[in-house]
Amino acid sequence: MLGNSVCKDPKLVEANDFLFSGLHIAGNTTNAVGSRVTPVFASQLRGLNTLGISMARVDIAPWGVNSPHSHPRATEICTVLEGTLEVGFITSNPENRHFCKVLHKGDVFVFLPIGLIHYQRNIGYNNVVAIAALTSKNPGAITIGNAVFGATPEIASEVLIKAFQLDKNAINYLQSKF
Amino acid sequence: MLGNSVCKDPKLVEANDFLFSGLHIAGNTTNAVGSRVTPVFASQLRGLNTLGISMARVDIAPWGVNSPHSHPRATEICTVLEGTLEVGFITSNPENRHFCKVLHKGDVFVFLPIGLIHYQRNIGYNNVVAIAALTSKNPGAITIGNAVFGATPEIASEVLIKAFQLDKNAINYLQSKF
Amino acid sequence: MLGNSVCKDPKLVEANDFLFSGLHIAGNTTNAVGSRVTPVFASQLRGLNTLGISMARVDIAPWGVNSPHSHPRATEICTVLEGTLEVGFITSNPENRHFCKVLHKGDVFVFLPIGLIHYQRNIGYNNVVAIAALTSKNPGAITIGNAVFGATPEIASEVLIKAFQLDKNAINYLQSKF
Amino acid sequence: MLGNSVCKDPKLVEANDFLFSGLHIAGNTTNAVGSRVTPVFASQLRGLNTLGISMARVDIAPWGVNSPHSHPRATEICTVLEGTLEVGFITSNPENRHFCKVLHKGDVFVFLPIGLIHYQRNIGYNNVVAIAALTSKNPGAITIGNAVFGATPEIASEVLIKAFQLDKNAINYLQSKF
Amino acid sequence: MLGNSVCKDPKLVEANDFLFSGLHIAGNTTNAVGSRVTPVFASQLRGLNTLGISMARVDIAPWGVNSPHSHPRATEICTVLEGTLEVGFITSNPENRHFCKVLHKGDVFVFLPIGLIHYQRNIGYNNVVAIAALTSKNPGAITIGNAVFGATPEIASEVLIKAFQLDKNAINYLQSKF
Amino acid sequence: MLGNSVCKDPKLVEANDFLFSGLHIAGNTTNAVGSRVTPVFASQLRGLNTLGISMARVDIAPWGVNSPHSHPRATEICTVLEGTLEVGFITSNPENRHFCKVLHKGDVFVFLPIGLIHYQRNIGYNNVVAIAALTSKNPGAITIGNAVFGATPEIASEVLIKAFQLDKNAINYLQSKF
Repeated sequence: MLGNSVCKDPKLVEANDFLFSGLHIAGNTTNAVGSRVTPVFASQLRGLNTLGISMARVDIAPWGVNSPHSHPRATEICTVLEGTLEVGFITSNPENRHFCKVLHKGDVFVFLPIGLIHYQRNIGYNNVVAIAALTSKNPGAITIGNAVFGATPEIASEVLIKAFQLDKNAINYLQSKF
Repeated sequence: MLGNSVCKDPKLVEANDFLFSGLHIAGNTTNAVGSRVTPVFASQLRGLNTLGISMARVDIAPWGVNSPHSHPRATEICTVLEGTLEVGFITSNPENRHFCKVLHKGDVFVFLPIGLIHYQRNIGYNNVVAIAALTSKNPGAITIGNAVFGATPEIASEVLIKAFQLDKNAINYLQSKF
Repeated sequence: MLGNSVCKDPKLVEANDFLFSGLHIAGNTTNAVGSRVTPVFASQLRGLNTLGISMARVDIAPWGVNSPHSHPRATEICTVLEGTLEVGFITSNPENRHFCKVLHKGDVFVFLPIGLIHYQRNIGYNNVVAIAALTSKNPGAITIGNAVFGATPEIASEVLIKAFQLDKNAINYLQSKF
Repeated sequence: MLGNSVCKDPKLVEANDFLFSGLHIAGNTTNAVGSRVTPVFASQLRGLNTLGISMARVDIAPWGVNSPHSHPRATEICTVLEGTLEVGFITSNPENRHFCKVLHKGDVFVFLPIGLIHYQRNIGYNNVVAIAALTSKNPGAITIGNAVFGATPEIASEVLIKAFQLDKNAINYLQSKF
Repeated sequence: MLGNSVCKDPKLVEANDFLFSGLHIAGNTTNAVGSRVTPVFASQLRGLNTLGISMARVDIAPWGVNSPHSHPRATEICTVLEGTLEVGFITSNPENRHFCKVLHKGDVFVFLPIGLIHYQRNIGYNNVVAIAALTSKNPGAITIGNAVFGATPEIASEVLIKAFQLDKNAINYLQSKF
Repeated sequence: MLGNSVCKDPKLVEANDFLFSGLHIAGNTTNAVGSRVTPVFASQLRGLNTLGISMARVDIAPWGVNSPHSHPRATEICTVLEGTLEVGFITSNPENRHFCKVLHKGDVFVFLPIGLIHYQRNIGYNNVVAIAALTSKNPGAITIGNAVFGATPEIASEVLIKAFQLDKNAINYLQSKF
């Protein structure tokens, strides 16, 4: 149901259509989780339309977290430019196996495969900067907390009580946070 | 990194390779969430190898829940054979829009698109039986609670504290539940 | 040459776009072959657009037949809800091997692979009800008899005389039936 | 369930692996339908493995027929080198529309789209030679008559009686021919 | 960024939409390289839209050359109708291995795999005629000489001096030729 | 014909299989073209197997060149970490249009689409460092000069004389360089 943007007449295409500027600028990490993702997806870089790739810059302040999330339409590879970064991903049912690794400058890590929940955490005293690439022009991102506890309209608390084995107060508290 | 099962010599294939029996048998729902999924994936039905489809039966006891989960490699369509079923899915960032619908016998619903978090809840006083089909021989299933709070080994509580804005006690409680 | 339907503006999408109702209603089988397929394809369920899946309900009266046919764009998996169903498919040249199986309630069968000719027959004294899923939003169906003997305009009888090794009267008779 | 041939070690590959010889040799058309297809599929040309293409030569004697058939895994394009060739294809249900065209030397025709039933007939007094290309290394071919009336083991005559609205004698006659 | 042609209303489609005429006419080879390709791509044959195939006729005068080129979106298979044809392709870095073969009438050769540089040369005293098929409706063709030395606007000579280890005069000479 | 590496047993997979180290180390650019590409493809990072993505670091000394090349199986996106980089790509026949752009730190550029010839040149007095991502685990790289003039065995000089409109001495000179 979701169409592509209308394409530009090929004759009017110019080199600027393939250009995005500003990925050297640190994202603002003064927020609750201490991290910021700067996407270069098809919305930001028109030339990515019809291609299966995109990029992003990830900034994480000391001890900040890029919360558990998944990309429904992409696998991700990233390399650390600065800092010390813990990365992890969890496989699907029934194992829910947690693969976890500490990355240093120059390390490249692939979050395998598509659609798994993964996260990143700065475990050092300096900023982390990482460059990620993803296998879709429009990979999407589902932040687990936002989707489960911050959906609009809210998911019925009875669903979440059962699913997370929490009482109604705890669920209401979580829903108030997102 | 994950290879297919070794294929059977085509000359030895027989009609039974395309058959799975027992989908008329109700799944046991006497568990914490009151639901059970009976999969007919490539592991259960060898003939599905190389095909992009599979089936499942979903049983949900009155007021039970098929917890929020995603299928990293499939879209799902389902039809209700018995009972009254609330279904919902949540779109990705930044909207996290929650689409929700009550289904009755004979209703068909598609959980669109691939990789989104969705759930099902029996909102009636009788059992729900639904038949689902998925666009992969091996769709995978990530139950959010299990992956986030029940991973092995556990995700560091510091990650979850930041991500879910909970204190360490609440996170420890959640991890003990999964 | 065949375009998709124009897509709906994502902002205007609502949960009803993902819903089809009525698959619990038995199809009318009072026809020459004693069977009826109720499709839930993209034409019936708008939300299937861009997805690789669809569903159908198959009703077959006692001793009725779902005539030999193929789906040019899909593989099919089905499960029997009621009755006793003979299913079969035939592999391509040169073997033309016929795989055949009697299915009972709860059996799941996959018609492998894409594009093969297959059929279903009710071999019991009660109605058969089956739910099928197909690997395309728009799988298509080619009923062999209709395509070969009932095309509009007709295929030249000289082609069919050679192909089926029948005389002109027999071909004319067949063409009059479809 | 059907695996590829085991691949050759890339270091041992040589130019001959990409070569098939003999497509200039006319196929033997002294058979019931007066036609012969010479395939250059992956079985004949090892280098086609993993590629989505193949070729074939079609010879049809005067008034001969390449019987109605479908390719479950390919679309076909062909060009006429010699002779006058009627080609036709029939769309799927419910229209069963018959597209038909007389081709002359140098004409190129595409049998659109994948999986449809199509045929070719020599409508002249000289041999027809055509070169076809198909969108699969292993397109498969289902000759309708062979699959329906010549399957091994036979399809139950009751299925064919209903499907083709013929009596048992006519079906038995057809089954004896294939 | 490059959209398909707008599709024709399916109801208005006619058999002529699947037809191209004239592939029996020899291409004009009185040019600097002594060869001519006559494409039957989606631009020439509307019915190829959405399909993964196209055809071409290749004419090469005695000792003429179909210059080194690549097809960015297709693999090619070809068969020789007349003449003696040397064909070759070169694998990618670091081997740059050159596979080369002399083809005669009736030989079929596959230029494997997608995107490699390949060429054809008539090494006989008669015209070569070949029919090629390609795995895209719109395979594209990059003639290396034209792209490198004949681009508009020109590639800076400093790039080419370094890349081809030639002096400025030689580069300017090459650029003047294309 | 080219198989994947044999896959690792999923149960033996560990986080190190998803890790490559050392991308922060500058490549050695003391060579004829003044540039070096450090690939992180499936050969370097086993975890990329079955995924459609890879990474590379590009180092270019002042005034050095990453020679015109193509990736037969990938589109490329890159971002500049340091320096001033001219990038260009050339479209296919018949336009051979040259898109060219000067990139600065933080710029992201996509070389669109798959298989086109492109190049990079350092046009500043400092080193260029760029991170590229490609839409294949094994994108391949065809350096035009190497493939055309440095193939093993050599392409017949008669082919290159015609194709590049050079005399035999010039071609021999070029072949001696690669």
